[in-house]
Amino acid sequence: MKYLEQMILSKGKVLPGNILKVDSFLNTQIDIELMKELGKDIYAHFKDCGVTKILTVEASGIGIACITAQFFNCNVVFAKKSRTKNMGDCGVYSADCYSFTHKNMNTLIVNNEFISPSDTVLIIDDFLANGEACKALMSIVSQAKAKLAGIAIEIEKGFQGAGDELRKQGVDLYSLAVIDKMEDGKIVFRS
Amino acid sequence: MKYLEQMILSKGKVLPGNILKVDSFLNTQIDIELMKELGKDIYAHFKDCGVTKILTVEASGIGIACITAQFFNCNVVFAKKSRTKNMGDCGVYSADCYSFTHKNMNTLIVNNEFISPSDTVLIIDDFLANGEACKALMSIVSQAKAKLAGIAIEIEKGFQGAGDELRKQGVDLYSLAVIDKMEDGKIVFRS
Repeated sequence: MKYLEQMILSKGKVLPGNILKVDSFLNTQIDIELMKELGKDIYAHFKDCGVTKILTVEASGIGIACITAQFFNCNVVFAKKSRTKNMGDCGVYSADCYSFTHKNMNTLIVNNEFISPSDTVLIIDDFLANGEACKALMSIVSQAKAKLAGIAIEIEKGFQGAGDELRKQGVDLYSLAVIDKMEDGKIVFRS
Repeated sequence: MKYLEQMILSKGKVLPGNILKVDSFLNTQIDIELMKELGKDIYAHFKDCGVTKILTVEASGIGIACITAQFFNCNVVFAKKSRTKNMGDCGVYSADCYSFTHKNMNTLIVNNEFISPSDTVLIIDDFLANGEACKALMSIVSQAKAKLAGIAIEIEKGFQGAGDELRKQGVDLYSLAVIDKMEDGKIVFRS
C-alpha cells in the first residue's frame, strides 16, 4: 500500500520514544478517502475467508473497521477498554492488554452476545507494535469459539517483532505498511 | 427515519434509570447497513450546507461519523476524552462535558490543527440526552472560529429537553429518532 507509506512520510511525525504521530490522517483526524483505499485493500486480501464479523478496539480502530466492513457486508464489534454502566449485567469476553504508549493496563471487554461460534472474525486495528491489543482480541475470538480469519493492521512497527511472531504462529497478519526502522525521525519501510 | 425506530423497538432495551441499550446495532456492535442508511439521510438533510468537516467524540460516534463522511466527501475529526501521550505538546481546543450515564466529568480535546476558521463543521453523535457532549463540541467549533452547519444525532431523548433547547437557539439539530417517552420499558417516538 504505497499510498499509505507516502502519507506516513509526508504527514507523519516521529516523537521521542519511537512514537509515530499520524493523527492528521489516521487517528484523531480520519482521512476518509484513504480509509476507503485501505478498506478495499484489506477486502482484496481477505475476501475469500468468509468473514462474518470485524472486531476492533475503541477508539482509533473503529473508523477503519467500519469503512472496511462495507466491503465485506458485515457488522463491526468493538471492544471497550472498561466495563461501562450501560453494559448492564451482560456476560462478557475479556482479556487484559498492556498499553506501552499510555503505560497502563486495560481489560478489553466484548458483550458475549456479539460473537458466536458460527462467526469468522477479522480483527482490524490501527497499530501493531508489541501486539498486546491483537493478542487480547485473539483471546476474545478464541473465548467465543469463533474462527479467526486473520488480522489487518494499518501500520505495523516491524522492528518490535510482534508481527513476525504472529506470522510464525500461522496467523494471517496483513499490514498495510510495515516500518522496519525508525531512527532520528527517519522512517524505513519493509519492502 | 422509520427504519431506525423499528430497530430500536425490536432490538433496543430500556434499563433502569432511563438508559436505552442499543448496543446490538448502534454502539458496541455496529450495523453497517443501518449506518449507511442513516448516513444517506444525514447527507440529504445537510447536503447544501457546505460541510467541510465532521466532528464527533470517541468512541461510539466514530462509526456513524466515518460512514456519513463518505457522502460529504470530507474528513472526520474526533474529540478525545483526555489528553493522551501521543498528542505531544500540540495546541488544543477543549471543553468540559459531564456524563450523566457514567457520572463523571470529561474534558473533550481536539488538536487545534484539525479545525480552522475556513471549516464548516457538522457535529455527529450517537445520543443526545442532556446535551452536554453537543455543547462541548459546539464550544470547540466556536473556539476554532469555524462555522457550525448543524448537529446530526442518531437517537435524541426528547423528553430530556436539551434538543428542543438547542433548536430554540437556532441550531439546525437533525435527530434520526426522537424519543418523547420511555416508561416501564415502553418507547414512544415523536411523530
